[in-house]
Amino acid sequence: MSDIAVQDTYPDDTARCYGCGRLNTEGHRLRTFSTGEDGTTETRFTPKPYHTAIPGYVYGGLLASLVDCHGTGSAAWAAYRAEGRAPDSDPPLRYVTASLRVDYLKPTPLGPELVLRGTPLEAKGRKVVVAVSLTADGIECVRGEVVAVRMPESMVGKA
Amino acid sequence: MSDIAVQDTYPDDTARCYGCGRLNTEGHRLRTFSTGEDGTTETRFTPKPYHTAIPGYVYGGLLASLVDCHGTGSAAWAAYRAEGRAPDSDPPLRYVTASLRVDYLKPTPLGPELVLRGTPLEAKGRKVVVAVSLTADGIECVRGEVVAVRMPESMVGKA
Repeated sequence: MSDIAVQDTYPDDTARCYGCGRLNTEGHRLRTFSTGEDGTTETRFTPKPYHTAIPGYVYGGLLASLVDCHGTGSAAWAAYRAEGRAPDSDPPLRYVTASLRVDYLKPTPLGPELVLRGTPLEAKGRKVVVAVSLTADGIECVRGEVVAVRMPESMVGKA
Repeated sequence: MSDIAVQDTYPDDTARCYGCGRLNTEGHRLRTFSTGEDGTTETRFTPKPYHTAIPGYVYGGLLASLVDCHGTGSAAWAAYRAEGRAPDSDPPLRYVTASLRVDYLKPTPLGPELVLRGTPLEAKGRKVVVAVSLTADGIECVRGEVVAVRMPESMVGKA
């Protein structure tokens, strides 16, 4: 597991995302770690009691949000890896979501920490496709796929 | 446009969704109205300033959440319509999301009220597929598709 999360290295102006911006005090502040030489990644998150769908289960929109941000964080890790450099090196690379697919395999229990694992499936040009698996208590509840595209350099690192 | 939103009629125990539950004081409290005899629907929502992706634009995870809840609300409207009765009649019908697809056509500006329109594409057995289009200032920024399935009767209306 990497010592840092990729989001720890984002320039301030791209670190305000409600899902994963370390500077967004209202948001989820997700942190995506690299877990293997094969490009796999991990993010953990414990929903709040009010993040409910029906009582006892996690709200699907939140789960989609987790898949989304874990996907773009994983895409950034994959891009740094492809360039053979660490995420705290320059120039910074940031990704945004072009499309998102989420399959709710079974209701996700509200309470346990959720673990999202990412696997880069494809990287071509400025696009990275990431498969995401979300588990609760070791049981896979959600599966997702994120198509992420690199943010234009002109938008990254602006003051 | 209908006088009531379908969520106004949900039994209390299924009215706690973070996205569209009228009893969730922390949530978005989305309300889905019927807009036409053809089964079309509408939900409006104005994001908070902290619902940001990069400054000036709406967080994609929130947009996915809006598509999700608008989809299940639209599915409920379609189901009541198919049974020829109003959403405040018994028995209550509730839907959950089986899968969700969201395409981010262009960055969604943060500030304007967002308008989501739903069109039921298919209804078969307990499943309803809904197409969703999200606009900001009249410009379509997001397109989604929600596969919703009817919640088992045993889970609807529990105290």
